Amino acid sequence: MEIITGGVTAAEGFEAASTAAGIKYQDRTDMALVYSKEPCVAAGTFTTNVVKAAPVQWDRQVIDGKGKVQAVVVNSGIANACTGKEGLGYCEETARAAGEALGIAPESVVIGSTGVIGMQLPIEKVKAGVRVLAEKKNGSLDNGTDAARAIMTTDTCEKELAAIIKVGEKTVTIGGMAKGSGMIHPNMCTMLAFITTDAVIGQETLQKALSEDVQDTYNMISVDGDTSTNDTVLLLANGLAGNPEIRYGTPEYETFAGALHAINEYLAKKIAGDGEGATALLEARVEGCENREQAKTLAKSIVCSNLTKTAIAGHDANWGRILCAMGYSGAQFDPENVDLFFESKAGKIQIIENGTALPYSEAEAAKILSQPEVTVIADVKMGEAGAAAWGCDLTHGYIDINADYRS
Amino acid sequence: MEIITGGVTAAEGFEAASTAAGIKYQDRTDMALVYSKEPCVAAGTFTTNVVKAAPVQWDRQVIDGKGKVQAVVVNSGIANACTGKEGLGYCEETARAAGEALGIAPESVVIGSTGVIGMQLPIEKVKAGVRVLAEKKNGSLDNGTDAARAIMTTDTCEKELAAIIKVGEKTVTIGGMAKGSGMIHPNMCTMLAFITTDAVIGQETLQKALSEDVQDTYNMISVDGDTSTNDTVLLLANGLAGNPEIRYGTPEYETFAGALHAINEYLAKKIAGDGEGATALLEARVEGCENREQAKTLAKSIVCSNLTKTAIAGHDANWGRILCAMGYSGAQFDPENVDLFFESKAGKIQIIENGTALPYSEAEAAKILSQPEVTVIADVKMGEAGAAAWGCDLTHGYIDINADYRS
Repeated sequence: MEIITGGVTAAEGFEAASTAAGIKYQDRTDMALVYSKEPCVAAGTFTTNVVKAAPVQWDRQVIDGKGKVQAVVVNSGIANACTGKEGLGYCEETARAAGEALGIAPESVVIGSTGVIGMQLPIEKVKAGVRVLAEKKNGSLDNGTDAARAIMTTDTCEKELAAIIKVGEKTVTIGGMAKGSGMIHPNMCTMLAFITTDAVIGQETLQKALSEDVQDTYNMISVDGDTSTNDTVLLLANGLAGNPEIRYGTPEYETFAGALHAINEYLAKKIAGDGEGATALLEARVEGCENREQAKTLAKSIVCSNLTKTAIAGHDANWGRILCAMGYSGAQFDPENVDLFFESKAGKIQIIENGTALPYSEAEAAKILSQPEVTVIADVKMGEAGAAAWGCDLTHGYIDINADYRS
Repeated sequence: MEIITGGVTAAEGFEAASTAAGIKYQDRTDMALVYSKEPCVAAGTFTTNVVKAAPVQWDRQVIDGKGKVQAVVVNSGIANACTGKEGLGYCEETARAAGEALGIAPESVVIGSTGVIGMQLPIEKVKAGVRVLAEKKNGSLDNGTDAARAIMTTDTCEKELAAIIKVGEKTVTIGGMAKGSGMIHPNMCTMLAFITTDAVIGQETLQKALSEDVQDTYNMISVDGDTSTNDTVLLLANGLAGNPEIRYGTPEYETFAGALHAINEYLAKKIAGDGEGATALLEARVEGCENREQAKTLAKSIVCSNLTKTAIAGHDANWGRILCAMGYSGAQFDPENVDLFFESKAGKIQIIENGTALPYSEAEAAKILSQPEVTVIADVKMGEAGAAAWGCDLTHGYIDINADYRS
């Protein structure tokens, strides 16, 4: 596998576009299109929230019906969630407008929305935007990046990555984009992320690859513990690489799954590190566990703890909060057998050994915790399994954004 | 039942004291004693965190062994958690010092600690403090209030309440004190709270009354989602009221349980409303549920949502975040059947009906949400059960306190 420049337009036959449709934001782009020259087999994972946004309901029909997908239309600013039958009707209208403008079936158009819950979309602006997107689309990397920018809400940077692998004699490309950055606590699935590939691969194999990897990537991040109504990951494969079909359980599948994982993990970490108000990416690695579930439970509890997150914001090696968060996670371990380390580009330091503090240097710890990426490593010394989770620090910026986001 | 002035010294035969022992804070009291002239039957509930502070381990031995209790020694500043065998040894030393100073058995002394995790107690200062407390103790209401103040950490006010009931011809008094105000997400039990009564009542009946009521009071509050290592509620009954013994299932038990509930609910709400950095108490009432568990799950999810809490801080009627929090709670309901209201001293307003927004006045909603106590009422229209949970808004103050609490 090799990481290359690009995002959703990196793979053969994919095009993208963005436009400022004026849905809610002024003076910035707020709609994006991802289009494939050939119909794609498609896999998706969606929010487990009982309250499901209209586009989630629309997309699930398409994906569950194993329908082919040829276009994705995304808007930012308004989430089209808690909008009843009217909101679901707007999905259909958007798909129909895109179908007409692109000359494809409305049933092959999937939709993503992100932004404020409870507002109705200005549907005429959306439909006008769709027509502009259809005209502007092309396969350039720049258009891919612009699309990644148009789907942002409180994100501070676009998030995209691409990779190539060899399948037989053929080069297969996978690329993706994602957005955060509040209401991030994906459960079974995630935020808006769109991955494209030119691989030849069956729908069931594609879905399996996505569903399995989401557990270790998007489902292991948290910004604020709030599981969104709109979480969506879509993976589209148009087959234009012409490779021999990738089948489950083969070495080629492992290679493909590895590249998919690299992209998903990169995007997931980007979402976590760009959490609302964040100044640091917080990685929690828990090692020495009896099994992977235990490790994941402990790691996720650390990155979800408000007190741990504020300590990271203050560059304070307040390890008691970390042990406390592990303690209430629901996973069993012996607190008097835990070793704890902090690590970043500035170095690595052991803070506790067998549950009690070592005489470490607070100044050195603070230096390590002042980096933009900080890792907490906990070893519970019970077995061989480990896992990582990602979050961010909790700062004044989060309060600023969310005490005043809607208006 | 009648609410009266007072706290832990309101009931017959209970005395209290406080002192500035210089454990970690300077220029304020940091140790408290609650003493009963007669040995008490005692009930307790403790943190479910796997990481249990030394005093929790000490107290559980006493309570589980159904030992009589005659004194409670509490310190603030240092939590004596994650302190290993040394920390547990300090509990024993403290109990022995209190036993000597008070002329009682060390096994009848229980201990509470709150503050920073991972630091060892300066045990000589603690023991000197115990001797001062034993000399200063008396049964005045002022001494009770001073004790409630000495156990505070980041709390901004002391929390105490007392009530009287009639049992036969006799007047029985119950009084209590509690402290918050960060690392508050009690699970099965709670923060530091100490309730005293002069009732004649058996230990098992007392424990049953406490264990049942904790589920509806302390376990229904959250400040930051972090379940502490030190959560403790102790209920002491010294029998000095001379009433006929209160037995489970009788009308007298119901009266006693009702008074206990009034005190626990008051203290729990006080803890929530005085959460770190809080400017408002957030009450969530969920009605129309099929059963009480469903109502409790939904109500607690609302008060735990960081996004709901920041919206309350901004006086923003961002109801989508509330519906979202209900949606990821794990409880089932039909989002398109929900009615939602905001209520405070400034009035009551319906925001959504059957899952979609009414044309309410944003200005009126903001006025209602600007009060120091704000209630969200959600009706899911499935049955007759309801429940309440309590939290607070999430503000810059929380960040200020916790990005810099330890140092």
